[in-house]
Amino acid sequence: MTETRTLSLAEIEELSFKALVAAGTSAGNARPLAIATAATEADGVASHGLAYIPIYAEHVQCGKVDGQAVPKLEVPRPGVITVDAATGFAHSAIDKGFDQLIPLARQQGVAALSIRNSYNCGVLGYHTNRLAESGLVGIGFTNAPASIAPSGGYKPVVGTNPFSIAAPGIDGKPTILIDQSASTIAKSEVMKHAREGKPIPVGWALDGEGNPTTDPNVGLKGSMAPSGGYKGVGVALLVEMMAAALTGATLGINASPFSGTAGGPPKTGQFFLAIDPAATAGDAFAGRITELAQAVHAQDGAHLPGDGRTKKRALAQTQGVAVNTATLARIEALLG
Amino acid sequence: MTETRTLSLAEIEELSFKALVAAGTSAGNARPLAIATAATEADGVASHGLAYIPIYAEHVQCGKVDGQAVPKLEVPRPGVITVDAATGFAHSAIDKGFDQLIPLARQQGVAALSIRNSYNCGVLGYHTNRLAESGLVGIGFTNAPASIAPSGGYKPVVGTNPFSIAAPGIDGKPTILIDQSASTIAKSEVMKHAREGKPIPVGWALDGEGNPTTDPNVGLKGSMAPSGGYKGVGVALLVEMMAAALTGATLGINASPFSGTAGGPPKTGQFFLAIDPAATAGDAFAGRITELAQAVHAQDGAHLPGDGRTKKRALAQTQGVAVNTATLARIEALLG
Repeated sequence: MTETRTLSLAEIEELSFKALVAAGTSAGNARPLAIATAATEADGVASHGLAYIPIYAEHVQCGKVDGQAVPKLEVPRPGVITVDAATGFAHSAIDKGFDQLIPLARQQGVAALSIRNSYNCGVLGYHTNRLAESGLVGIGFTNAPASIAPSGGYKPVVGTNPFSIAAPGIDGKPTILIDQSASTIAKSEVMKHAREGKPIPVGWALDGEGNPTTDPNVGLKGSMAPSGGYKGVGVALLVEMMAAALTGATLGINASPFSGTAGGPPKTGQFFLAIDPAATAGDAFAGRITELAQAVHAQDGAHLPGDGRTKKRALAQTQGVAVNTATLARIEALLG
Repeated sequence: MTETRTLSLAEIEELSFKALVAAGTSAGNARPLAIATAATEADGVASHGLAYIPIYAEHVQCGKVDGQAVPKLEVPRPGVITVDAATGFAHSAIDKGFDQLIPLARQQGVAALSIRNSYNCGVLGYHTNRLAESGLVGIGFTNAPASIAPSGGYKPVVGTNPFSIAAPGIDGKPTILIDQSASTIAKSEVMKHAREGKPIPVGWALDGEGNPTTDPNVGLKGSMAPSGGYKGVGVALLVEMMAAALTGATLGINASPFSGTAGGPPKTGQFFLAIDPAATAGDAFAGRITELAQAVHAQDGAHLPGDGRTKKRALAQTQGVAVNTATLARIEALLG
């Protein structure tokens, strides 16, 4: 059994903040990342929560991300905001962008935020959820080093990173949140099996010639299997077109890895759209989102994407989160 | 073997136009639909080409679509155009919207077109492709009567209708075009098997309790299998949120069927986003799209979605299209 210690969300945020600053991150860049880390732990997505803090710290120290970066914002057209993340953390670039994106979307009806020279943005749905909390429909895309091959091919050309959409219902709260990658399974799961020396099920990954494999190491050198075959490739292409091409960020085929210390900054991108449903649907929107959600929940055993996270989040607010003590020890060591 | 007759694209357009007008469609509504029908035949998507003309004619006559409708356009915010299709054909509503959407996207950087009280829009990629031909990134969503059940559930809540994205490359022509539904297979394929009394493969459709079935009639009363399981449901929810909720159109759970003559107008919706890549990526966009396409085509046997349609289209311009004579006879009968 894994040993755990229960921390409040405030404690998780503070611990993350201190560790990031100790590693050489500015307070302004550390804060949004620390807040997102606490929210991610609250949602039960432990793989992208505190476990990432030692990786972030290492990446600041090796220069894969610039902890002192100052994101640069421009408004080239009435409906578009661009942010050059300057090889810093995605979170502060997104924060800076959202401060203007939210009022702009209300004014214009639709507005876009295009971020380049960026880094892994953690859980994408965390960011789109913030737009839904502001009464907007939030759509997001984030790209990643290539790990999915095209249909009929064998060499990776697109990443497994997700798209996300979040929308508020009649209570004004985020009611439907989708945040899904284009691969059958997260690459981190294949990496975990490799570390543990366990075989992977057929259908998770392919070898260098595009054939199924049960060897996680062979799969990691080959490609990740797209969910649903060519339709998964289509979703991955959508994400790459939006998050890399449309931002002027680095394509997945040219990006340095997110893991490890080699290769310098990945300079990947994020793209967000914020739409004011009052502009596009009058007062009809929230009722339809709630009716759609209710049609799902009215069926025994049926659920919406995001339902699990919502329940865990509510619990974490009052009860805190049980965190792996080995993860905590690694983070506390960073504080010196 | 199926008997065919070869028609030029101009002949296909003219035949479609005359048949639609003979059925009671105004010239203004018939023309965009006739142009789209010819383009769809050129792309080799025969299921949505001339074969649909007798269905359109029947739907005008029974009132499922108003052939004389005049779409009503408004601009409620600087970046948003709404069109009430007035239960008419989607194509003329989209045409009217695109006339303003294209210049608006260039000016604003991003603009949205929200269409409600609409009808089946045919091949969605036909419309996004038009945005790409104008140098924009075109994204589209169209909703449909519910036929996919939620994860863990058994009753349909979302449709199989697609999302689409189209983008130009360095030659200024549409270079990547994705147009895919959320189901493993098109519902029309299951209907075809039912008509022909053939069993369907496991994985195409589910019975009323959510179990796999090989009986197409059982599947049509149950639900369509989502591509890649819960991730297919996620894509279907994305489409429903965009095309129904965000337009104020009828949710798939409440929409009358697209097929048959019962139930009156479906009043479904379409939502389009047009983004000017020069605003979001400076001059970096087209090069990245072309580089991504080349990374796919450089691999033996690999292909992009839309490659097949592009090749057929080029051929059809000079050689015309071989059309099923039985389909032609049905259309010619409409001309009286």
